[in-house]
Formats: sequence, structure tokens, C-alpha cells
Amino acid sequence: MSDDKKLTTRADNFSDWYNELVLRSELADYSPVRGCMVIRPWGYGIWERMQRALDDMFKATGHVNAYFPLFIPESFLSKEAEHVEGFAPECAVVTMGGGKQLEERLVVRPTSETIIYSMFAKWVQSYRDLPLLYNQWANVVRWEMRTRLFLRTMEFLWQEGHTAHATHDEAEEETRRMLGVYRTFMEEYMAMPVITGQKTDAEKFAGALRTYCTEAMMQDNKALQAGTSHNLGQNFAKAFDLTFQNEAGQQDHAWNTSWGVSTRMIGGLVMTHSDDAGLRLPPRLAPTQMVIVPIWKTDEERAATIEAAKRIAEDLGSFKRPDHERIRVHVDERVGIKPGAKYYHWELRGVPLRMEIGPRDLASSSGMLVRRDTREKRSIAFDVLRTELPVILDTIQADMLAAARERLEANSHRGDITYDRFKEIMDGPGGFVYAGWNGDPAVEQRVKEETKATIRCIPDAEFRSPNAPTTCMVTGEPAKYEVIWARSY
Amino acid sequence: MSDDKKLTTRADNFSDWYNELVLRSELADYSPVRGCMVIRPWGYGIWERMQRALDDMFKATGHVNAYFPLFIPESFLSKEAEHVEGFAPECAVVTMGGGKQLEERLVVRPTSETIIYSMFAKWVQSYRDLPLLYNQWANVVRWEMRTRLFLRTMEFLWQEGHTAHATHDEAEEETRRMLGVYRTFMEEYMAMPVITGQKTDAEKFAGALRTYCTEAMMQDNKALQAGTSHNLGQNFAKAFDLTFQNEAGQQDHAWNTSWGVSTRMIGGLVMTHSDDAGLRLPPRLAPTQMVIVPIWKTDEERAATIEAAKRIAEDLGSFKRPDHERIRVHVDERVGIKPGAKYYHWELRGVPLRMEIGPRDLASSSGMLVRRDTREKRSIAFDVLRTELPVILDTIQADMLAAARERLEANSHRGDITYDRFKEIMDGPGGFVYAGWNGDPAVEQRVKEETKATIRCIPDAEFRSPNAPTTCMVTGEPAKYEVIWARSY
Ligand SMILES: [Zn+2]
Ligand SMILES: [Zn+2]
Repeated sequence: MSDDKKLTTRADNFSDWYNELVLRSELADYSPVRGCMVIRPWGYGIWERMQRALDDMFKATGHVNAYFPLFIPESFLSKEAEHVEGFAPECAVVTMGGGKQLEERLVVRPTSETIIYSMFAKWVQSYRDLPLLYNQWANVVRWEMRTRLFLRTMEFLWQEGHTAHATHDEAEEETRRMLGVYRTFMEEYMAMPVITGQKTDAEKFAGALRTYCTEAMMQDNKALQAGTSHNLGQNFAKAFDLTFQNEAGQQDHAWNTSWGVSTRMIGGLVMTHSDDAGLRLPPRLAPTQMVIVPIWKTDEERAATIEAAKRIAEDLGSFKRPDHERIRVHVDERVGIKPGAKYYHWELRGVPLRMEIGPRDLASSSGMLVRRDTREKRSIAFDVLRTELPVILDTIQADMLAAARERLEANSHRGDITYDRFKEIMDGPGGFVYAGWNGDPAVEQRVKEETKATIRCIPDAEFRSPNAPTTCMVTGEPAKYEVIWARSY
Repeated sequence: MSDDKKLTTRADNFSDWYNELVLRSELADYSPVRGCMVIRPWGYGIWERMQRALDDMFKATGHVNAYFPLFIPESFLSKEAEHVEGFAPECAVVTMGGGKQLEERLVVRPTSETIIYSMFAKWVQSYRDLPLLYNQWANVVRWEMRTRLFLRTMEFLWQEGHTAHATHDEAEEETRRMLGVYRTFMEEYMAMPVITGQKTDAEKFAGALRTYCTEAMMQDNKALQAGTSHNLGQNFAKAFDLTFQNEAGQQDHAWNTSWGVSTRMIGGLVMTHSDDAGLRLPPRLAPTQMVIVPIWKTDEERAATIEAAKRIAEDLGSFKRPDHERIRVHVDERVGIKPGAKYYHWELRGVPLRMEIGPRDLASSSGMLVRRDTREKRSIAFDVLRTELPVILDTIQADMLAAARERLEANSHRGDITYDRFKEIMDGPGGFVYAGWNGDPAVEQRVKEETKATIRCIPDAEFRSPNAPTTCMVTGEPAKYEVIWARSY
């Protein structure tokens, strides 16, 4: 498909828009293996930047990286009852190895609690060995029937944190800390505002005591669960004999946490910011932050504008801001492609800034700078690029977060909402509905069946409504919690 | 096993020494899955530094990262005849997914030529789309019967570069360029000297036109193949219809290269530098470059020495040298463990520098600095640490390479060596034997059967002997090549 065909618009068909955009911006492609995708360099460049930022944050909070096997003996999965129930149906299973049938079948990890805590059990003897604060960057496989690029794929890339602690409270603190790290990352890097809160029992991780999550709102007003952090209690420690001698000299089971985010975030990034012309990437995650398009008619002009563009790219690339990284600049010097087609190309790919340099600009030592997010245009002198570009990039980053935050609030419904009105919202514009819930799983199940909406979370205090509803939206009984309802990915 | 038990010595049993060292220095551990290992944080920290350095070098030579599926349809593997012959016997095969038998079985990638070139075929139309210069960081699985920690494991981590070019010569240039990158990395980061050269047909990659390799010598005088770079010719392009329209307007098959290094390098690092007291890590790859051990008797002394140590660590950690990275310092403030036990602990783990700070040192604002490689001791004033430590670390790095180079040369046998003498060397001290070969695969096979030695490579010009042998060591016929024989891992 060539670059000049228009995308389906979001209003026309959000789902088609998303798929076309991911493919045409070359973030990813379908692969010959059903349900598995190829992450192309432009998509992987975003993932690399996500990894780097998160990894630095994990290390700053005391975590170390390690690597555990891809394969898990089938018997391990069964040791924690809820866990096996949750994951066994979606496992890929290796039954043959080296040309022979295996005695014990191996599951391709859908998540690594079982194998990791079996190793922790080997390494931990005393409270002095705790806490263990581990993280792993890895691929995992879950056999999904309906897949969507980035959002739900059979194989995906993620990080999974796994920790062991001496007490419940320490584990709880860690679980909440990492949820906070995710929130910070999503807001400050992805420019994607999220609600943090706790999952209901029906929605929690298979084997966890409590699951916390970050929920973001996409442009079609559906929710995307972007990250989860689990307090696993002593469930896995009991299943895998992860015990330690406590300070009092007694044997005790350790307390575990696990937490993860994945390449799914790239889908969230796309659906949070992009428009009908293509991606809009926040500067901190954009593989290229500014593209320079030299404009020429004659060979002489071509040589001069390309030379100027390259000099600028080199100067900016070698300039290290004290608090940030180098500015990532690309010069589009392709021959035989019109400037307009180049603009289109880079708009589709979401590069935050474009600078056009023609012969007349060159004469005044300036370029025409265009913001991808607002399409705002201004002339900028070459000699202020070093000082002004960092400010402009920071402004774009902040503006994108503010715009997304505004959209989130505009599509959040608070106040006394009847169940009938709720159904209208879900069948109409969608969005997040803050409502009272009596805490009964049967009510949760009924709403899900009738409206396809689920409780996204019991929001943390700072996200609760100033006047929280006092009665259950469905039964009229006293509300036990204020919860957020939405349809979701 | 506690830290104070002595390691088996290299002289006693090199293989036991290696296994014990890898386990006790906590580089890795055995896992519950046969043949798969766990890479522990200390080992993974080395791998992360290897990744970072290589990744920077790949990007500096124009490559981009991407990610392709873990699973490969079984039929793909069969499309290149030599390739399937080489890899099919060592594949892990997924036959079940989502609780059902699969229609087409999926192979867990042993390497990704087939899946990657099938995607390249989709993306490349014209010579303008070439070259494609891709790299992927990934896990791969090869069903090995006899495994060794890092050296040969069922699953391992690696990078695999995959490129497509318009001409044979461009592909050949790329193949050689990446071999050069590997050599530079191994010498400058691992402080591990290598011989570069070409594999014989018997030893080349399944499906390649030519395979180039880097060969290092371990302390038991056996060879370790540390990296390979393949010119794949048009073999895979023909199998996967990777065609393009060339400048003359005709359809042509692309030329591919692939190249890879893996966590096996960590095994090479251990066997190149370590001694009977433990690891010796080159400073550029050491997760911690200096450990500070505060020494105290009274609580007051404890507070004072720890405080000084932390101040130094912080100062060095925040000090960015213009050409290098931050100095990585750890303060061992553990209570209840004697200084001697701490020295032992960090020697075992190979930290290049140790600084002891006792109350008397503190009084003179200096510490006792001990090099892990030479065990050399000297007093160093706190106020010259910033300027002197970088120099000392660079010196250690250079000294380690020089020492390894000397050992390599000392155990290389050149000149006219009879086949009888050759057998004596192989059954005795081992090492690299430079000898003439008539080019006949039957001779190569015979020597392998009789001596367990293989041709490691036909060395590149700069590694050839000044007076290269003119006759074949085995047959006495005229030599076609000078080759290097050795037993290997
Ligand atoms: Zn137990
Ligand atoms: Zn063909």
C-alpha cells in the first residue's frame, strides 16, 4: 500500500483505522504464524525507548535483571490451583524435542511465577537473603483466538518483576511502589494519563491476593489495561516451598509480588494520541524527534540544503543537554520524492517535529518548523536550535499529556447515574462511568453480560469522585465501593 | 555451598573448576528444566553490558533492531535443504496450543533465517529498498544432549543480524564488517584476543556460502568459537522468493548475511581470565568496577568508615568522564561478616578493584586499593580517585588483554609439525596448531576421528605464520591452506 492513500478515519471505523495505521506506519506487520506479529524497526525503536526508561526506573528502585527459562515443566503450572486454572487453557505446549517425544511436556511460559519462585526457594534461607527484587525482560506466549496487533498477540514482549519479602506489608508496599512507577512512566513518557486502582476478585490475576492496575482511555472511549502489579501473598511461596528463617528463628513462607507491562503499551500509545493523518509520538519515546526535509529545485540548491541539514543534525546529535539525552534528528535526503510526499511520510510515522529548509530559508539561516501534534508552523533561526528545540520538545510532551487528560475527563461520567442511563452511555459514546457497587460479584457478572462493560478498577483515593455515590447503580443497595465501569480492550 | 570452601583448581580439573566457579560466583544456576539454565543477576549484569556495547556498535554501522516470532512453521525450515538438515534434529516442537492439536506444528526458533527472509520478501520490491540491515536480540532453542552452563545450553540468549543486499560483493563486505565488529568487541571489551578466519565447508553454517568466525583460546588450551558471520549467498533468497527489481529493471534474488554472538561469550570470558580464587572481570564489562570494604571495630568507626565509603561511591557515581561511563562502585556494608570474608566474596565474583577503608586510612583520607588481576596493593588518596581510577581501570583492561594475548601466543604451535607430533600436542598440552592442509575434507574428517581436533579456521592474512607451511601435515601433499587445528568447546 503506498503512502498517499488516505487512512480510514477514526470516526468511520476506529478498529480499521488502528489496524491500517499500525501497518502503514510500519510499526508492525502480520507474520506467517497465526496470531504472532513482527515488530518492525519503527515499532521496535519505540519499545527500546520504553525499555530503557523503565529499566532505569526499576534499577533506581533497587531491582536487578535476570533471566529464567522459556520452558516450564507442565507439572509446575499445576502447583498453584488458581494459577493453572487461569493459564492452562491458553498454553503452547512442546511435546517433541530432539526428534523424540518428551517424558514431561514443557509449557512455553505464559508468565514466570512458577519457575522463578521455584528458583527463589533454592536461593533463600534466611531473612537476611530477603528481599529479592528481580526483573526479567522476556517474550511470553498465550494462545489467543482473536488477536490484534500489539493489543493481543500470541507472543508478546514484556518485563515481569518478581520479588520476595519477609512480610505482607513489605510486599504490599512493593506492589504499590511499582504501580506508581508504571503510572509515572505512562504519564511522563507515554503522555498517557491513567487511573490507578484495585481489580475486583473476578478480574484479579490467577493466583494473586490483590491486583492493582493502571487503566487508560483510548480515543474510542474504551479502556485499556496498560499495566498490572500483583500482591501474590504467600500463595506461590506455599506452592513452591519458598521458606526462610525469620528473625525469631522460625520458618516462614515468603511474600511475593509480580508486576508487568508489555508491547501492548505501544497499542495504547497509538490509540491515545494518533489522528486521521497518522501517528503522533510523544518526543520522549519517538525514535526520531525531528526530521529535516531539504527542499531544492536545482542540483546546486540540493547540495546546499542537504549540507545545511546534515550540519544541523550532526550539531544537535553531538549536543548533550545536561538533563536530557541527545536530540534525535533524521535528514530525509531521498531523491525523486516530492517534499509533500515526504511530509506525508513522516506525519504518518508521527515524528514530533519537521523542519523544512529551502534555498530562501538557507539565505536567512533559518528553517520552517512544524509541530506534528498541533501542525503549528513557525520560522526558527539555526543558531537558536540548540536552546529552543529542547524547550519545544518538552512543550509538545506536556501538551500531549494535557490533551489526553482533558479527553479522559471529558469522557468520564460521574454523579448519580441510573442503570438505564449507564446502558445508554455504553451503547452510545462509551467512556468511564464512576458508579456505586454493592460489592456483589453476581451484580458485576450481570452488568458484564448485559452491557459488555466490566469494572476496570476500584480507583485509588485521588481518582475518586468528590461526592462518591452512596448507592449501588444496579441494586440501589448501599454502595461498598465507587468503581469505574467501561468496555475495554 | 558457602563462600569459604576453596574452588577445585584449574590444574586439578578444569571442567569442575569452571562449573563450580559459574555456580558459586552466582553467574548462573541449573534450572528445573533439563539443559536450561538461569542467568542470575551477576551474570545478567555482564550480559547487559555486552548487549549495550554491541548494540551501540551495530547502530553505528547502520543497523536497526526489530523482533520476529519465536515460532516458525515447520514447513519453513524445510525450504532450504542444507538448513533443515542442520537444524531439524535439534528442534523443540510445539504440537499443542490452546488445548488443541495443531494442524501445522511450530518449531521454536533455533535461528531465524527462514522467518526473517520470508518477511523481507514481503517488504522488498526494488533495489531502492536495499540494503536491509536488521538485528534482533532474542532467545533461541536447540535441543542439546550434553549441556554446559553458558557454553552449550538448550535455550540461550543471543543477537542475530540479518541483512539483504543487491550484490554478492556488498553482502561479502557486510559479512566481513560484522566479523570485524565482533573482533573489536571481544578484544576491547572482553579483553579476549581472537583469531579471525573462514570455516571449512564441513564446519560452515547450514545454508551458508561462507562462514567466518572468531576463535579464542581458553586456559585449558581448547578453542572456543565465540562468534560467526555468514555470507548466505542467494540460498535463502531463492528458498523464500526474496527478489527485487535491480537498476536495470530485471528481477533478481537478494544476497543475505547473518551473524550472531550469544551468552556463550560469558563462558569464554570466564575461561579466558579467571583463576583459582574466582572470576576476574575486565573493567568494561564488570557490573561493579570497585567494591569498597569499610573496616571497623567500634560502632563509631563503623559509622565513620561507612559514611566515607558512601560519599566516595556517590561522588564517583555522579562523576561522568567525558569519554567513558560512570564508575560503578558498591559499598559492602554488611554487618556480621569479617573483612576477610568480604574480600573472598568479591574476589570470587571478579570485581576488578577493591578499596579497604579502616579508621587509620580515614585519618589520612586515603584507602588501600587492591587489583583483582595482579593482587597489587597500594595506598590511594581520596582526592585523586576521580582522576586516577579511570586510568587504573583502563590499565587493568589493557593488562588483561595483554596477558591473554601472551597466553594465546605461548600455546600456539607453528612451523613444520609432523602428524605424530601433532597427536602428542593434542593428547598433551593442547593449543592451536598452525599446519598445512591439502583442502581435502576426507583428511579433515580423518584427523577429527583420530585426534578429536577440528580445523577451527583458515586464518585471515594477518594471523598466518610468517613462513606458512607448504605441505599438508597429514598427506605431505602440497598445502592449499594454512589452517588452525585445535580441540574445541
Ligand atoms: Zn511450604
Ligand atoms: Zn525465486
